[in-house]
Amino acid sequence: MESMEEVMFKAQTLIEALPYIREFSNKKVVVKYGGSAMIDKELQLSVIKDVALLKLVGMQPIIVHGGGKEISKWMGKVGKESEFVEGLRVTDEETMEIAEMVLGKVNKGLVQMVEKLGVKAVGLSGKDGGILKVEKKLANGQDIGYVGNITSVNTELIDTLIANDFIPIIAPVGLDKDYQTYNINADDAACAVATAIGAEKLAFLTDIEGVCTNPEDKNTLISVLTLDEADKLIENGVIGGGMLPKIKNCIDAVNNGVSRVHILDGRKNHCLLLEFFTKRGIGTAILKHEGMLEHES
Amino acid sequence: MESMEEVMFKAQTLIEALPYIREFSNKKVVVKYGGSAMIDKELQLSVIKDVALLKLVGMQPIIVHGGGKEISKWMGKVGKESEFVEGLRVTDEETMEIAEMVLGKVNKGLVQMVEKLGVKAVGLSGKDGGILKVEKKLANGQDIGYVGNITSVNTELIDTLIANDFIPIIAPVGLDKDYQTYNINADDAACAVATAIGAEKLAFLTDIEGVCTNPEDKNTLISVLTLDEADKLIENGVIGGGMLPKIKNCIDAVNNGVSRVHILDGRKNHCLLLEFFTKRGIGTAILKHEGMLEHES
Amino acid sequence: MESMEEVMFKAQTLIEALPYIREFSNKKVVVKYGGSAMIDKELQLSVIKDVALLKLVGMQPIIVHGGGKEISKWMGKVGKESEFVEGLRVTDEETMEIAEMVLGKVNKGLVQMVEKLGVKAVGLSGKDGGILKVEKKLANGQDIGYVGNITSVNTELIDTLIANDFIPIIAPVGLDKDYQTYNINADDAACAVATAIGAEKLAFLTDIEGVCTNPEDKNTLISVLTLDEADKLIENGVIGGGMLPKIKNCIDAVNNGVSRVHILDGRKNHCLLLEFFTKRGIGTAILKHEGMLEHES
Amino acid sequence: MESMEEVMFKAQTLIEALPYIREFSNKKVVVKYGGSAMIDKELQLSVIKDVALLKLVGMQPIIVHGGGKEISKWMGKVGKESEFVEGLRVTDEETMEIAEMVLGKVNKGLVQMVEKLGVKAVGLSGKDGGILKVEKKLANGQDIGYVGNITSVNTELIDTLIANDFIPIIAPVGLDKDYQTYNINADDAACAVATAIGAEKLAFLTDIEGVCTNPEDKNTLISVLTLDEADKLIENGVIGGGMLPKIKNCIDAVNNGVSRVHILDGRKNHCLLLEFFTKRGIGTAILKHEGMLEHES
Amino acid sequence: MESMEEVMFKAQTLIEALPYIREFSNKKVVVKYGGSAMIDKELQLSVIKDVALLKLVGMQPIIVHGGGKEISKWMGKVGKESEFVEGLRVTDEETMEIAEMVLGKVNKGLVQMVEKLGVKAVGLSGKDGGILKVEKKLANGQDIGYVGNITSVNTELIDTLIANDFIPIIAPVGLDKDYQTYNINADDAACAVATAIGAEKLAFLTDIEGVCTNPEDKNTLISVLTLDEADKLIENGVIGGGMLPKIKNCIDAVNNGVSRVHILDGRKNHCLLLEFFTKRGIGTAILKHEGMLEHES
Amino acid sequence: MESMEEVMFKAQTLIEALPYIREFSNKKVVVKYGGSAMIDKELQLSVIKDVALLKLVGMQPIIVHGGGKEISKWMGKVGKESEFVEGLRVTDEETMEIAEMVLGKVNKGLVQMVEKLGVKAVGLSGKDGGILKVEKKLANGQDIGYVGNITSVNTELIDTLIANDFIPIIAPVGLDKDYQTYNINADDAACAVATAIGAEKLAFLTDIEGVCTNPEDKNTLISVLTLDEADKLIENGVIGGGMLPKIKNCIDAVNNGVSRVHILDGRKNHCLLLEFFTKRGIGTAILKHEGMLEHES
Repeated sequence: MESMEEVMFKAQTLIEALPYIREFSNKKVVVKYGGSAMIDKELQLSVIKDVALLKLVGMQPIIVHGGGKEISKWMGKVGKESEFVEGLRVTDEETMEIAEMVLGKVNKGLVQMVEKLGVKAVGLSGKDGGILKVEKKLANGQDIGYVGNITSVNTELIDTLIANDFIPIIAPVGLDKDYQTYNINADDAACAVATAIGAEKLAFLTDIEGVCTNPEDKNTLISVLTLDEADKLIENGVIGGGMLPKIKNCIDAVNNGVSRVHILDGRKNHCLLLEFFTKRGIGTAILKHEGMLEHES
Repeated sequence: MESMEEVMFKAQTLIEALPYIREFSNKKVVVKYGGSAMIDKELQLSVIKDVALLKLVGMQPIIVHGGGKEISKWMGKVGKESEFVEGLRVTDEETMEIAEMVLGKVNKGLVQMVEKLGVKAVGLSGKDGGILKVEKKLANGQDIGYVGNITSVNTELIDTLIANDFIPIIAPVGLDKDYQTYNINADDAACAVATAIGAEKLAFLTDIEGVCTNPEDKNTLISVLTLDEADKLIENGVIGGGMLPKIKNCIDAVNNGVSRVHILDGRKNHCLLLEFFTKRGIGTAILKHEGMLEHES
Repeated sequence: MESMEEVMFKAQTLIEALPYIREFSNKKVVVKYGGSAMIDKELQLSVIKDVALLKLVGMQPIIVHGGGKEISKWMGKVGKESEFVEGLRVTDEETMEIAEMVLGKVNKGLVQMVEKLGVKAVGLSGKDGGILKVEKKLANGQDIGYVGNITSVNTELIDTLIANDFIPIIAPVGLDKDYQTYNINADDAACAVATAIGAEKLAFLTDIEGVCTNPEDKNTLISVLTLDEADKLIENGVIGGGMLPKIKNCIDAVNNGVSRVHILDGRKNHCLLLEFFTKRGIGTAILKHEGMLEHES
Repeated sequence: MESMEEVMFKAQTLIEALPYIREFSNKKVVVKYGGSAMIDKELQLSVIKDVALLKLVGMQPIIVHGGGKEISKWMGKVGKESEFVEGLRVTDEETMEIAEMVLGKVNKGLVQMVEKLGVKAVGLSGKDGGILKVEKKLANGQDIGYVGNITSVNTELIDTLIANDFIPIIAPVGLDKDYQTYNINADDAACAVATAIGAEKLAFLTDIEGVCTNPEDKNTLISVLTLDEADKLIENGVIGGGMLPKIKNCIDAVNNGVSRVHILDGRKNHCLLLEFFTKRGIGTAILKHEGMLEHES
Repeated sequence: MESMEEVMFKAQTLIEALPYIREFSNKKVVVKYGGSAMIDKELQLSVIKDVALLKLVGMQPIIVHGGGKEISKWMGKVGKESEFVEGLRVTDEETMEIAEMVLGKVNKGLVQMVEKLGVKAVGLSGKDGGILKVEKKLANGQDIGYVGNITSVNTELIDTLIANDFIPIIAPVGLDKDYQTYNINADDAACAVATAIGAEKLAFLTDIEGVCTNPEDKNTLISVLTLDEADKLIENGVIGGGMLPKIKNCIDAVNNGVSRVHILDGRKNHCLLLEFFTKRGIGTAILKHEGMLEHES
Repeated sequence: MESMEEVMFKAQTLIEALPYIREFSNKKVVVKYGGSAMIDKELQLSVIKDVALLKLVGMQPIIVHGGGKEISKWMGKVGKESEFVEGLRVTDEETMEIAEMVLGKVNKGLVQMVEKLGVKAVGLSGKDGGILKVEKKLANGQDIGYVGNITSVNTELIDTLIANDFIPIIAPVGLDKDYQTYNINADDAACAVATAIGAEKLAFLTDIEGVCTNPEDKNTLISVLTLDEADKLIENGVIGGGMLPKIKNCIDAVNNGVSRVHILDGRKNHCLLLEFFTKRGIGTAILKHEGMLEHES
């Protein structure tokens, strides 16, 4: 049996969450789910529990997930090699078929975890209800097959599901104008969906602490980054490499109306809850300008 | 800055609340607010914060409050003595006038506290929308004036407010068939309202630990009491005195469809949260039979 | 048994009301209730019956009431002197407490009368649902305590109640940004509410005949006053004294979209009905310009 | 200009109507419109104004009208003789064609008068939306052509129009199962419609004072008739002749749930208003049993 | 029993209709019904079946009909001569009365046919719900009586009926500002209604093949006519005579937002279906410019 | 260009469909999609077009599909042998994983085809929204792994999608009470879904002509089979083998409220349209008793 001090600390914690719950009530939140948090079983459960809690306290979470490592594993199983250009998977017809199957399996696996917690979920791909329309994306000018650039998002199905209290869980697959299937970068998909549905927040679960002025030293983590500051960090090269497209996505999202984009360390248990419901900030928040600081920061 | 352990403990607490939040989502909960919790400023805030949190995580709380001590204070101010028969205030016309004024002040004071937390509230008396209809109540066969027995509850106004996300806060005043004003016992009012609106829970904030087999020894607290057990305790005199009418109210409420009636110690900070959202039980829960134990017990 | 002529005259009266009923169907009407009409028992009933009839024939009445004389009476009961600066009550904490209690009693008394006529009513103060937000008002530059100037009106609760066929009855009490209670001038409150909810009409029940060019001679009553004419009467001093702030309120209301503001003689039985449903005008109507004359004038 | 006494009498009349308006609010009332009240221009306007007022104060009136005399007139114009068996018009194909045309003209004429008063109306026949389904009716065992007995009423169209605040005005024409057109007795149609839509009241505008124990002496008018009493009057022959089928219709309507059927003297101006909104009863009311007396009787 | 080839051809036909059904789903279509198609019994049934099918596959058809020949016939029956100025019927009071009666009969006859197919219909004139408001129309500067020019269309009743799945069938009769009845040209009425309700299509059933460059040679039929082309044909006199006002109506409709106006040959069985659901065009389609060609053309 | 005869035949075909379209309007129809119709590209398109047309003319189709052959193919690709007991696939964890992936791919492929026709579709498995709950199914008493028996169907998600005009396409995968994934027989799933949502029709696309008294001779096809007749055919062994469980499913569905179950030959182009919209029956219809024959039979 827990001590009375512990019990009171618990009550205090719930009360501490009160202003955040009130503030985010009915707000849409897109969670880009990927990286280590998708592989480690304990982290998986931690993320899914966080998302379920967001839903139960009145927010409207939407999950957009990746599945790169799992796709590579199944490519191997059927004796096919994975090939990448500029970080993008070269996607011929058979690769596309395998990718879609694997993403579908991952997708329904997430549905299963959410449903097990007693919360309603629906697994979708960007084909369902015509959510994601794409055109071919070139890698450095080179045709690498069925890799798509999102051209439009149809939010009708997502809106219908949210209005009926289902959590939409979306795999990054879409159709071009001839209804051919394409693979989509999950970060791009999350960003496009967040913008299209008018999300309040977009949270990327990543395998880093956040944005650091010195990536080698996690004590240099930047808690809050305005668009102007982000531009400067890009200019002077602090943000570069694999971080660059992600940050550009974040900037786009903020420019298109998402109030706050979070780069969170998905390797930490309950990173979503800690970011959303406690005073202690986690990772890096990107927002338009300082005036938009939330009270918790 | 808090330590990482503290932070993780907080996350754990929020996650621990998940099944309770899910289970009580959209359920109506009547809180009878009275006793010490209404007088001590810190306890007041603690109760109001708890109720606001219940609302924010998706429950539908309704407050029914008393105000006896405050009424006596104002009786004194205008030079009038308070007189009681069988625990009921003898209520002539002027007393009724003062009682209604004081209850109105207490009522709007609670509205003020809830609104300050950013949650919508409306202060009502049983006159508004004809909520409480009464007939004269005798004390031991004696006419003690405008003291009423509830004969019917019109829930239309309460339902309208709940459906529009206001917390109704109700003072125990009603009208008889000639539209004369009557004073009502707050426990009776809470019980009648809970039954009429189909509440899932009815929680009495009291100045005791709960029901004890030996009232002198709080280690004999009974956590769960079925109707059969309660009947027996009444029969063999363990429950008696001022406790008797309260327990009878509880039994009535359970018999009329309220799943669970709680007798909580209002002198403990956040007793509502602790009871509703943690494994550790507080006070005594009264329910139909053992099979109805909630998972938390 | 009445004669056939009387009966036919009655039918004719009902038919005469037809165009007014059609014209005002579903329109919102704010009635500022105060003065003699609040004290005389017969006048009280006459006003309440009029308001109930407005509701029953399809209009949406809202009552805003005062209670100055009653407050002074109770101040006396607890041995406190009333003090005024520039017609505003100096309001220390205890005075505020008493004022709120008395206004609450008056408020629920009106609810009781409307309910007795079989029409649904809800008694509110400006605290409920955050209806009235204020800031401190100075009297001639002097701090006279908790007397408030309305800064904003939140109509959500009023709209909800109207949509569900309740008549809102509002006491002029509000909260400042720190959620401190303030007393408000009832005329100001009526005017602010009428403007905020988009009322078609605002009717002040007063203790005068209306605006007279010679206040001593009620034969000089002005039936219709345009804004331009009102300005002139203020300029040349015909309107002055206690009348001035009331007329300024009327002008504000008309400028903010209320089609017609009526200054009625609340000492006349059924003055509301006579003004709204018969050809014979009562009191003074203030409107934007002559082109807005209703057919009845 | 009217005197103050007149004005106060008017106010009093409006207030007197208050309980009736409240009681009948949203109730459906079927008015069978026929006889002198359809021919005299002044009476026409009086009836239409009454119906418009019923609508404006919140009732849901439906008009079912006849047109016998007008049909005979047009039969003459095209050189065709009218022929009756047992009071029913022998209706060959050409007669049916003329009857339908004339009823259509009368119908749209009524629409025109209601619309002119600023109230929305729609003219229908029993063909529209399949309202009236019939089978052939024999007169004394004799086939007299397209004269129909109502077999069912489809209320969907009427309900739709009422819900959107139109007054339905219905001509008594229907279709049999082969979709052949039939003429219907207007009393029958009014009765069937009142029963099917669950009307509170059904009022017949007739050319008599009401039911009299001695038809020669209008001082013997019966104000209230219970079903038992009506049966007795039929048995002992007081009710007979043309009155018999009308009274049987009334009895049917009451037996099928219409609370009160009124036989009114349509030759009196505003007979509907006088019956519905004043204490003085007009004509004869038929109801289930004495206990159902309205307060006005 | 039909052969398998026939059966497959049928399936193919249904499938061929798929894109048209999808494209016109929920779109409003006004059908001006007149000419031979109103007289020949077989053509009547063919038109009504077409309209019923449009409704059943998800379109929202509205019929506006004429009745000139039938009116002349009944004028004769009552011994009155028809007289025309500039193609408009001189309409004195009695003529108006007859015209309204005959149009009413035609109107309810169409309702009857639609209802017989199991589809819900309501027959209206422009008086009902104040649909058509008019002013007097002069013929060549000459007053020819109750012939009206449409000044406004109130779509509330039409919208209500459509929303409840009734087909509105409208006779071209209207009221002026004094609520006097007027006769209206049916083409004008169809055009005004189509514009006011925002119809996608307006189809005129006529007694010609469509617009021909040489009216003598039906091989010169123009399938598609843009507004520019129509203007040219009017300028150089190819379109003239009785065709001119009809084409001007079409041009107005297109200019006011109707996407496509069709001049169809009502003498051909199922001309509506053939135009709307097969690749083979019928008659002449008038549209804004070539870019608006539908896929079927 | 097609001949005029062809065109008229087309119009006739559309008109012939009118009574069926009217009759099935808004009715739910479950199509079990499997067998040859899922493999042949042309048949696939034919089925999908039929379903799209059902939707467009107002029915509410739901597809439940299988995927056995495709699963076996992919089992082979990763070097795993398929094993069957009593016609049920032995399903270890890896087989389940592959089956779910393949069914997911098939599922989204169908979505893609429907979307390409301009109709909205959503691909689901029985996990989404908790649609299909199962328990382990034994084959002849033998545990063959993750093969499930449906124990309950949650229709909330299906109902939500239908109400918003999406076609739900469902893969036969479900969860047991521990949220473990199971494979389900597609016929069972179709039958359970049809029963749970209250479908009017359930159509099985099979690789046979229908039920024949002599399976070798397709001229012995039974067009209509009542439950009694079906029982007899089972008793005397005419129905047996692989047909037996399918017919038992049909009988269950009819007993649980599905009006009509069709066994259609999916190898015939547009078999759904021919069955639903033409007089010529296809395959075998199973219904409660002869009295329920539709007009088309």
